[in-house]
Parts: sequence; C-alpha cells; structure tokens
Amino acid sequence: MSPNFIHTYVSVDCVVFGFDHENRLNILLVERHLDEERQIKLPGSLIFSDEDVDDAAERVLHELTGIKKMVLKQFKCFADPMRANNENDIQWMGTEYKQHIDRIITVAYLSLCKIDHKINSTKYSTVDWFPIDEVPSLPFDHNKIINESLGEVRKWIEVDFSIIFELLPKKFTIRQLYQLYSALSEKQIDIKNFHKKISSFNYIIPLDEIEKNVSHRAARYYKFDAKIYKKNNTKLIK
Amino acid sequence: MSPNFIHTYVSVDCVVFGFDHENRLNILLVERHLDEERQIKLPGSLIFSDEDVDDAAERVLHELTGIKKMVLKQFKCFADPMRANNENDIQWMGTEYKQHIDRIITVAYLSLCKIDHKINSTKYSTVDWFPIDEVPSLPFDHNKIINESLGEVRKWIEVDFSIIFELLPKKFTIRQLYQLYSALSEKQIDIKNFHKKISSFNYIIPLDEIEKNVSHRAARYYKFDAKIYKKNNTKLIK
Repeated sequence: MSPNFIHTYVSVDCVVFGFDHENRLNILLVERHLDEERQIKLPGSLIFSDEDVDDAAERVLHELTGIKKMVLKQFKCFADPMRANNENDIQWMGTEYKQHIDRIITVAYLSLCKIDHKINSTKYSTVDWFPIDEVPSLPFDHNKIINESLGEVRKWIEVDFSIIFELLPKKFTIRQLYQLYSALSEKQIDIKNFHKKISSFNYIIPLDEIEKNVSHRAARYYKFDAKIYKKNNTKLIK
Repeated sequence: MSPNFIHTYVSVDCVVFGFDHENRLNILLVERHLDEERQIKLPGSLIFSDEDVDDAAERVLHELTGIKKMVLKQFKCFADPMRANNENDIQWMGTEYKQHIDRIITVAYLSLCKIDHKINSTKYSTVDWFPIDEVPSLPFDHNKIINESLGEVRKWIEVDFSIIFELLPKKFTIRQLYQLYSALSEKQIDIKNFHKKISSFNYIIPLDEIEKNVSHRAARYYKFDAKIYKKNNTKLIK
C-alpha cells in the first residue's frame, strides 16, 4: 500500500500589529458568524487554485484594511494535523467555503499598521483592534499563531530596525519610540542608554516642532529618514 | 458558482549548508532517477496525512544524513501555481508517489552541518556536497529556493551569531571564522575590524593549541562557549 500523503486545503492568516495611544501593542481581529453566535478570529482566507500564498495574503490584507501599501512578511506554515478538528471550526468552514474540511494548513503572515490609519474593510463588517495581552480564546490555533508572531516581530526589528517606524506616526517623540521598543522587547531597557544609542542614529532626524497641549514637558518631534538608514544599515560586523 | 479553492499535496524541501576546506559554502543535493536519466535535486518529501510539516522536515533530514541532532529552521512556503508543471517533474512525481500531481506547495527548511560529519543516508544512494555557486539547473523551483535560502542564513546569523559555529569544526582559527563570515556576507569585511570585534566577544575562547603542519604561520585554535553566549546575547539596544 502506498503511504497516505496529505491532500488538503491551504489558507493564509494575517497578524496585523498596531501601537496604540496608551503604548500597547494591538492586533486586528475580525468577526465570524456561526448560527446566532459571533466569534472573533484572525483575518484569513483559503487560497484559490491559481493563486500563490503571497498573493492570497495581500488580497486578505487589502480586503481587511482597504489600505493599498502595507509591509507584509510570511513567517510560518502551521500544519498540526489537529489544528482544524474542532466541531465548531469544521461547521464554520462548511458554511463559509461550502466544503467539508477537517484538515487545513495555514501560512501565517505579519503586517504592521499605523494605528491611526483608517480601516476600511471591503469584506468584514466588524474589524477591531485588540491589545495583544487581552486577546480572548480564538478558534483553530489562532492564539498560538499570535503568540509566535510576537517573537517574529521582535526578530524582524532586530534584523531591520527601520520596520519599527511602520508602527509610529510620521512625526514621533523619542518617548514614543522608547515605549514602542519596550513593548516589543522582552527585557527592561534603560532609558538613558536608549537615548544615547538613538542619538547616535543619524537617520532619526529632529524636527523644528514640539508637542502641544500636553501635561508633561513638551518633547521634540523626530522623523525617520529611510534613505539615510539604507546607507548605514547597521550590521553586527562591518 | 463557489470559488475554486486549492486542494493539493504539500511537501518539504531541505537546504543543508556546509563550509568546506576551501572556504566555500556548499549545499547537500541528492539524485533522482527518471527512466535512464539521473538528475540532482534538493532532498525533500511529500508530507503524510497525519504529519506536521516540522516533523516531515526532521524525517527528511534524518533520512538524508543519519545525523540525530541538527539545527533546522523553517523559512518559507513556496506556492507558485506553476512551480510543478514541468513535464519531467510531473512524470517523476507519478513514479515516486504513484499519484498524478501537477500542483504542489512546498515548505522550505534550512539546516547547517559541519562538513566533516559523516553523511549516512538511509534513503538516498547518492548524496553530495555542491559549492553553492556551482549548482546546476535543478527541477521544480529548487534553484530559487536555494537562492533565497542564502539570504535566510545571513539573517539567521545576524539575529543569532551562535548559529555560525554550527558550520565550523569544534576548534577553529579566527581565519576560518573570518572566511566563513565573509562567504556568508554580501559585502567585503575589513579583517582588522573583524579581529577587533571578535576579540571583544567573550564567548570565543582561545585554546592552548595551535595549528600543526601548515605552510603559513601557525594560528591559535579557539572554541565557542554557548553558555557565555546565551548570557550576553548581543542585541541592538540593551
């Protein structure tokens, strides 16, 4: 007897990160409907037979946000044979895709979004930001995917620091950058060391503008210069 | 009409890197047989219906090398709808897997191997090291996978420098480390800067032993201390 090879459906799922005004990491979740119940989940879709996974992820991201250009990074294929064998999940896939599906492989993607961007979904009626430490229990292995995605964002920023500016407004204070970097890091970061290090980065440009209407001392705004960054891309050993 | 969702086979392919005595990066390739012809390709396999992709990759790696413990990293899912529509590839899959397959998604993995490890394959009769810049035209999109894997090894080492020591013998000279790092890097590295940087890494330990029987000036051997490395794991901003 020849071995029993997998023959299956393949989906993509997107974890979109945002950084909110209370300095917390958020992700975008959508609603699925099953009978009368609503349940939140990661945005995703089965891929079409003539579609590459990267194209499917771009499609999902565009249907989700309406935003034309967003950073997008494939990070892992999740293929646990048991990941889609929950009764509710099988029933929902039957309704959504008109197929009986009890095994499905998914390719997970990361994206980053300035949280003040207007989300204008063409597919989902409900799209919401959730603080990453307040995400409830989700269908499939979506909680696992979200947990692993956080480690991936960290690594991504270690490899390419310019990625962090995708999450910040165009003009930002060093305090905002520090709070975002702290939210992304696993360990405590000394603020003095941080300031010292940041001021050595010539691609972070001070602007002639300070904060207005704030209760603390008004801080200077900065901007990120991608061209200067590309020239000086910091590597371990130059 | 409901959309035409993909329903397909899924495989894994492994790119195993080694660093040879002539300071070149090599990869492991295997032979496939089709009629009278032999053609080299990446080692890989369809995954079984009850198998996770990570487990399938471990299985392939073990069948390939006979080595029990090797680093292994999933790096990308390749899903171009045209990646398996070459006549020879379809014919070979028909023979190998007893199925007519004309679309297949693969999940690609990286591994690193000390090139002096004995390769003891339980599956392939022919397994050979090939210098990465001398790899001929391969079936499917294997050349594309290999090209992208090189960028992934670079990123991996930027994020976790300890990975580089998987490719070196247990005791190595700084010249070997320099040559390996140079082979992996895209740009020229100044050897003086390299020496200076390396001597600041307290996890690279000098040994009381120097090279023997060499034509150049005998160099000192060093070893890598994983425990010290873990304590001092270099991050962009501490």
